[in-house]
Amino acid sequence: MKENLKLKTYKLPDIKNLKVHGRSTGCFSPLTLFWTGSAVELNTSGSELWIEVESDYDTYETWISIAINSQVISRQIIAAGRYWICIFRNMNENIIKNIRIIKDTQPMSSDCNSCFQIHSIKSDGEFFPVEEKPLKIEFIGDSITSGEGSLGSKAETDWISMWFSALNNYTAMTADILNADYRIISQSGWGVLTSYDNNPNNNIPKYYDKICGIPANGKNESLGALKENDFESWQPDFIVVNLGTNDFGAFNNPEWKDKSSGKIYKQHLNEDGTFDENDIKAFRDAVINFILKLRKYNKNAHIIWAYGMIGIQMMPTIYDAVNIYIKETRDNKVSVFQLPTIIDESTGALSHPGKLSHQKSAKELSLYIKSIL
Amino acid sequence: MKENLKLKTYKLPDIKNLKVHGRSTGCFSPLTLFWTGSAVELNTSGSELWIEVESDYDTYETWISIAINSQVISRQIIAAGRYWICIFRNMNENIIKNIRIIKDTQPMSSDCNSCFQIHSIKSDGEFFPVEEKPLKIEFIGDSITSGEGSLGSKAETDWISMWFSALNNYTAMTADILNADYRIISQSGWGVLTSYDNNPNNNIPKYYDKICGIPANGKNESLGALKENDFESWQPDFIVVNLGTNDFGAFNNPEWKDKSSGKIYKQHLNEDGTFDENDIKAFRDAVINFILKLRKYNKNAHIIWAYGMIGIQMMPTIYDAVNIYIKETRDNKVSVFQLPTIIDESTGALSHPGKLSHQKSAKELSLYIKSIL
Amino acid sequence: MKENLKLKTYKLPDIKNLKVHGRSTGCFSPLTLFWTGSAVELNTSGSELWIEVESDYDTYETWISIAINSQVISRQIIAAGRYWICIFRNMNENIIKNIRIIKDTQPMSSDCNSCFQIHSIKSDGEFFPVEEKPLKIEFIGDSITSGEGSLGSKAETDWISMWFSALNNYTAMTADILNADYRIISQSGWGVLTSYDNNPNNNIPKYYDKICGIPANGKNESLGALKENDFESWQPDFIVVNLGTNDFGAFNNPEWKDKSSGKIYKQHLNEDGTFDENDIKAFRDAVINFILKLRKYNKNAHIIWAYGMIGIQMMPTIYDAVNIYIKETRDNKVSVFQLPTIIDESTGALSHPGKLSHQKSAKELSLYIKSIL
Amino acid sequence: MKENLKLKTYKLPDIKNLKVHGRSTGCFSPLTLFWTGSAVELNTSGSELWIEVESDYDTYETWISIAINSQVISRQIIAAGRYWICIFRNMNENIIKNIRIIKDTQPMSSDCNSCFQIHSIKSDGEFFPVEEKPLKIEFIGDSITSGEGSLGSKAETDWISMWFSALNNYTAMTADILNADYRIISQSGWGVLTSYDNNPNNNIPKYYDKICGIPANGKNESLGALKENDFESWQPDFIVVNLGTNDFGAFNNPEWKDKSSGKIYKQHLNEDGTFDENDIKAFRDAVINFILKLRKYNKNAHIIWAYGMIGIQMMPTIYDAVNIYIKETRDNKVSVFQLPTIIDESTGALSHPGKLSHQKSAKELSLYIKSIL
Repeated sequence: MKENLKLKTYKLPDIKNLKVHGRSTGCFSPLTLFWTGSAVELNTSGSELWIEVESDYDTYETWISIAINSQVISRQIIAAGRYWICIFRNMNENIIKNIRIIKDTQPMSSDCNSCFQIHSIKSDGEFFPVEEKPLKIEFIGDSITSGEGSLGSKAETDWISMWFSALNNYTAMTADILNADYRIISQSGWGVLTSYDNNPNNNIPKYYDKICGIPANGKNESLGALKENDFESWQPDFIVVNLGTNDFGAFNNPEWKDKSSGKIYKQHLNEDGTFDENDIKAFRDAVINFILKLRKYNKNAHIIWAYGMIGIQMMPTIYDAVNIYIKETRDNKVSVFQLPTIIDESTGALSHPGKLSHQKSAKELSLYIKSIL
Repeated sequence: MKENLKLKTYKLPDIKNLKVHGRSTGCFSPLTLFWTGSAVELNTSGSELWIEVESDYDTYETWISIAINSQVISRQIIAAGRYWICIFRNMNENIIKNIRIIKDTQPMSSDCNSCFQIHSIKSDGEFFPVEEKPLKIEFIGDSITSGEGSLGSKAETDWISMWFSALNNYTAMTADILNADYRIISQSGWGVLTSYDNNPNNNIPKYYDKICGIPANGKNESLGALKENDFESWQPDFIVVNLGTNDFGAFNNPEWKDKSSGKIYKQHLNEDGTFDENDIKAFRDAVINFILKLRKYNKNAHIIWAYGMIGIQMMPTIYDAVNIYIKETRDNKVSVFQLPTIIDESTGALSHPGKLSHQKSAKELSLYIKSIL
Repeated sequence: MKENLKLKTYKLPDIKNLKVHGRSTGCFSPLTLFWTGSAVELNTSGSELWIEVESDYDTYETWISIAINSQVISRQIIAAGRYWICIFRNMNENIIKNIRIIKDTQPMSSDCNSCFQIHSIKSDGEFFPVEEKPLKIEFIGDSITSGEGSLGSKAETDWISMWFSALNNYTAMTADILNADYRIISQSGWGVLTSYDNNPNNNIPKYYDKICGIPANGKNESLGALKENDFESWQPDFIVVNLGTNDFGAFNNPEWKDKSSGKIYKQHLNEDGTFDENDIKAFRDAVINFILKLRKYNKNAHIIWAYGMIGIQMMPTIYDAVNIYIKETRDNKVSVFQLPTIIDESTGALSHPGKLSHQKSAKELSLYIKSIL
Repeated sequence: MKENLKLKTYKLPDIKNLKVHGRSTGCFSPLTLFWTGSAVELNTSGSELWIEVESDYDTYETWISIAINSQVISRQIIAAGRYWICIFRNMNENIIKNIRIIKDTQPMSSDCNSCFQIHSIKSDGEFFPVEEKPLKIEFIGDSITSGEGSLGSKAETDWISMWFSALNNYTAMTADILNADYRIISQSGWGVLTSYDNNPNNNIPKYYDKICGIPANGKNESLGALKENDFESWQPDFIVVNLGTNDFGAFNNPEWKDKSSGKIYKQHLNEDGTFDENDIKAFRDAVINFILKLRKYNKNAHIIWAYGMIGIQMMPTIYDAVNIYIKETRDNKVSVFQLPTIIDESTGALSHPGKLSHQKSAKELSLYIKSIL
């Protein structure tokens, strides 16, 4: 190997023009990426570039994807440890390339030690400004928004990091179509009121105001995950909420028992298969309250409740909630949009939407957002 | 990180049921993969698997892709050195997975030190037989067959390993459609008579009988690349020859001068743009002679000269050559097939066929092969 | 011309096994087809077949399409008069063919003399039973459901029969995907409360219980159009209501003045662009009342309000209405489904959905219906 | 019916700006259309238009298609007799519309009385010039070029006019992509040397110089079909010859006996399935001679032998012939192009290419023609 003697190592805080995507603590030594779709982006000259990463986990490792000039050229598992990864070599040193290193996996609420950080960059080039996109979108959701099963064949049943993807994902695709910067807040199995298994703690609204407040993130917590999120620094033009799928699941799954209090939680169906009146009202109120919370932190965003990729059973209640919210608040910048339901040919791994389904949803959703713009 | 204490390390020669794709020397300690599309394949149980690779280069590094159960889940640069790569973790240890680790880059005839090897595998599972596919295909070609530019945007102009792909490639796609095992012999810029720049040494036929005889492979040479290939051990049912594109280039590029002898080589066009009669005859004879050589080593293969992805200018002469060959030898198992020419929307990087173009060619070629079967 | 001496003429009442699609009066001498998508269907042997039609109009002529074995082989204008049309010639007389002659145009509420009838059939074959399809669907709608503009280029602006199609139509396509018999009740410009121009008389619910009660059909009236429809004879499994698009139009168009009473009708928008509270309530109540009326006549049908091909502005109110209806009646066989909105590439003539848009809606709608089945 | 009192009747010779597509005798009272794809084209204002046609046949009737502003709005059988057909009604009288009435069926060489003529036009508008297209293409072929089976389901087996189409046809599609005027010379079952059943009289070259010289056209003959074609009046830029499919058939079908001379004709296969040397040479010479004939009448056209939609078995010999022709004549404006072979999903009625296959061929062929332009 011929060594490239021109390579210089930069600590992240020393890099001008580094763009960070996704909620972060503001700490750059090192930088922690929490959510799926979080990324660092660079416009850089030079013939060669490396990044120094550090990662840990008990069970669920991190995966990353690497895009050069918007083409994905690499995807890889991040084994535990601290080490250098080569991003490119041997390119024309005078041409400016756009580099994006994307976290492909969600924060893992069941793995205290799951964590991914970037320390340094090695390069023989310079760093140039990365433009702000003219539009900002925040996506909030569950496994669908985490891209669970959007990679891998239908036959796969292991719930592992490998089958998650931030790019085979309607979020990245919608942002791409609309030329938008975006952030994701999402967690498999969670809902707006409870998780699929009736656990009332596993709802996204509860932790929305923290940087990455989903429980069990022992390591992430020490890295600042539970700090208040700085909403002023990044105000989205659109918030897309894709929740409800696990709340429907709760009606069809066994009760959840709080081990400390002994209290039992369960969303009930009536004998004729319809929703129990009080339970569906609890869901409806959770939708209303989450919109109120979103509006508190995002004064100008148009909020779209976009739902339907795995069934549309909660749609009437979601519309009911949004109708009530609008009537009571006179806030018209909230609407509902139905996403296309997966079909056999568009199903991926783990019975979740595959790439085709995500593409279809991105196409419809971006058309809808354009119609509002 | 929780350590997986069940992992055992195996030297390659100790692994039963390892399937190697692509020409190799028979040496497994370590195993050298020479050609693009060369691969190791495993059917394995266990929850976790790593491979130990070793690689070197002056300029052109190796890239690999990893497929699990036929889904590509990773692609990565192989930096110089010897180290372990994690293939998967945390899968159901009782289920047998099909794993394929594929070399994504051609042997680099201009880089003496370019080389890729596999030493060992670490696993907590067992290894099961990999079935032979019912069909075997050998692909012989140039940059098109090496998948040059089948990854990356049209704007890319750096001639680097990153833009090569063995999977965004009509060879892999055709084999996949036909459920075939396959091998590739290919080199960017080379032809059947000369390379695009009129160098008469850079032709595939000259080195066809060596394992990987293309020049400049200093390191590969020491690893056995120049040994005679063992044709008996792998007899293809079909040989697809995709050559002629660079031979056409030679008519349109400057002469090449042999520095030692001072001799000048050049394929000429007449003033009216037609081919010089003697020069085109030399090409025609090179086609005939290559078919004779292929038949010498492959007694039963149906030989298809499949040409046209970047223009069909040599097609009349290719047909002329094959007509003569059949007439003289009475060997009817040779035919010509026109592949669809790239168009704007199907062009990839480096003015080469992109993924769409490779898909189209694979579809047509596999239909043609089926019609012969 | 060689005359086919075997041809016999049959009056319609004399034809066994004639299947009539679409609401009709029960009179067969002659048979009047009122609605678009209405048709006669035959399974017939013989080498040749003709039908005798009669038609009149002041302005808007009828068009028909002819399908043989489910392939559309002809579409033609029906000029005024009574005459014979050749359906096929020279076919194998022993093979049974499925023949369907489809009315391609809606009843024209602004043309008193528009009318289409079938008198007789000439054939040298026999007539065989046509199977009932396992599913029955009734489609109720406006210009979208009438296939207005689903034929013709975007540039066309003449409001004429030629640009209507019963086959470039989500109704026929959905029925085809689901293997269903179907009927259509539709009228361009009409809504559930008023027409696009605020005329409160032009709403479909008002005339739903008549065979074809839309006003101005002087000639059709004398043929029985205003008779009560015999709902017992044909009970659909699904009713698809695609109304609301013109009701939204009413909010954006000038008032309508009843010339006799002098009364003025207008749906209002508030200054901030939102709907006037009373006016939107009137629409909501019209939706509820129409569902009540539909249920009165169709005891077992699943009613789907399927809306959205030209915008989804009324969707929140439609959901509101359906939620109220279900709550008050405990009738759960009513739901709402969002159809994909037209985009540039799927727009046809007269700013209406083109063939692509109808195909997309049919695909989504049929998946939704399957999910209920 | 309200009568349109403004309608005036024009004999064809009195219509300025009438454009006739396809070979014709120059006689306009009436105008005979011989070949499939032949058409009359008008740019016309007015609200209404009718044409007066006359047609006869023993067995095989004519079908026509009607396009308004390039959209096909009607297709219909032409029953025997002389009568008026309504083309459009009720359009904006001030807007100029482009109207094209296209013969959808080939001349029927087995029906002496098959014939189609246009006498008059009735209109309330004026006639405006129709522009010449910048490119002219002549297509020469067999059933493929006649669009046999490009309409109708795979199950159809009746050889009847209904399953022929000039528009579900690579000829019309290629001309449309390239914005070209075009003519067709084609006949089902015929070849360049013999027909599929070894009849040496049924070859296109023999009659190429007549307007429509295919035998058995008793009625057409009396209308001038056997007159010399006026090549000077229409010189194509490209001639596409799609012949060879039936010549291959002749090798696989029984001999043909000339009843008058008792002579027997048969193209033979050797026992090993290869072509008999003399017979294949006869085919090769027929290709060469036809190109010589084409060049005689078309001094500047680029001649493309475009073959392959139903197999490519004759391709080596076609290339051989064209190579010999070019070598001997030094005429380089002749080339060979392989069209994509039909596959299951692209097959139409009568085991012939369906619409999908024609679209695919048109796409590839037009790209090839563009590459020559």
